[in-house]
Amino acid sequence: MASNNEDVKLFGIVESPFVSRVEIALKLKGVEYKYEVEKRGNLSDAVIQYNPVYKKIPVFVHNEKPISESLVILEYIDETWKQNPILPSDPYKKAQTRFWSKFIDESVDALRKVISTIDEKVREKGIEEIEEAFQILENELKDKFFGGDEIGIVDISAVIIAYWLPIIQEAFGFKLFTSHKFPKLYNWSQDFNNHSLVKETLPPRETLLAFYKGVYESVNASK
Amino acid sequence: MASNNEDVKLFGIVESPFVSRVEIALKLKGVEYKYEVEKRGNLSDAVIQYNPVYKKIPVFVHNEKPISESLVILEYIDETWKQNPILPSDPYKKAQTRFWSKFIDESVDALRKVISTIDEKVREKGIEEIEEAFQILENELKDKFFGGDEIGIVDISAVIIAYWLPIIQEAFGFKLFTSHKFPKLYNWSQDFNNHSLVKETLPPRETLLAFYKGVYESVNASK
Repeated sequence: MASNNEDVKLFGIVESPFVSRVEIALKLKGVEYKYEVEKRGNLSDAVIQYNPVYKKIPVFVHNEKPISESLVILEYIDETWKQNPILPSDPYKKAQTRFWSKFIDESVDALRKVISTIDEKVREKGIEEIEEAFQILENELKDKFFGGDEIGIVDISAVIIAYWLPIIQEAFGFKLFTSHKFPKLYNWSQDFNNHSLVKETLPPRETLLAFYKGVYESVNASK
Repeated sequence: MASNNEDVKLFGIVESPFVSRVEIALKLKGVEYKYEVEKRGNLSDAVIQYNPVYKKIPVFVHNEKPISESLVILEYIDETWKQNPILPSDPYKKAQTRFWSKFIDESVDALRKVISTIDEKVREKGIEEIEEAFQILENELKDKFFGGDEIGIVDISAVIIAYWLPIIQEAFGFKLFTSHKFPKLYNWSQDFNNHSLVKETLPPRETLLAFYKGVYESVNASK
């Protein structure tokens, strides 16, 4: 399912789960794209020009038209390439997937706070908040994937939980997401990470681990 | 354009700009609905049951199916009642409106910080952040409305800027949004607030002013 006469580019950084979301969606759709590797802290003029508001990645460019914000990009991809839908067509079910994608983004905000603070209390409160959110997701998960039998936008949004979080918690030395605490969510994460098309887009574990060990050092160096 | 055989309910609080978003969309669509008035700080069992994750309003219920989160509700309304679209049909233009609605929600978060802090520095920094965002919106506004000639989802999302903010800044005694600083945005706010269908959904100015004076007192009482 090649995309002929289409110019599809993704500007990203390998360590970004938000870029990973876009890559997974493109892979599931079978859309060919060119990955433009950016440098953290020194983004190219192209990214600044394509995303002048936030000046950040991912930036998705389809036939010279740029789109930013990963969830916005995912919806665009689903509306543009109809094969293997990642959102349901029913408006009510669609609303539910948007609700849960937003919910996951809020957990990501909490996680961001946890890994950027040196205040033990703030970290603990953040972890508690994430655990409450995960309990809600654990109860919500009814099928193999949040999307049912197939991977959908909620699963893709949650790649940070499935793949990034176990690595982040190893680098930071906390145990938030375990098979004991969240058995259904844990099984889901295994199925998701091992899905053949997802697997080939995920960055190497060792690269991410090294990166997040660096983040840990840099945050805690100021202690 | 009555909605026959439809059971449409909106659970809300008159002071909430997020509830106002939903009301405006329904009014523009000509969809009849029942407004269920909630009490701040003492939400009904119905709301808790319909929105167990956040336990907050607005909650929109269509034929017994509940939806939460105002932007999610707006997209559902647009997909369910096709007349007078509030999102463009073109996927790229649609992506742009989603980007800007999200951008406005981030300004709302900044405004929330500004009005809930007693720390002068935090307030000033928040105001600066909002002013930067407004300058971006000022530059973005090309037509009468963000939606073009007609009101769209970005305009509706920005009701908090058009109608709430002038009242909030009067209650709090700061001058962030003025015709001098943001002439295009200011004119837009007048056109928006005076649109006949919008006008009839907006709560009375005096009610909001009294409410936000109360918020100001309560925040600053702890000084």
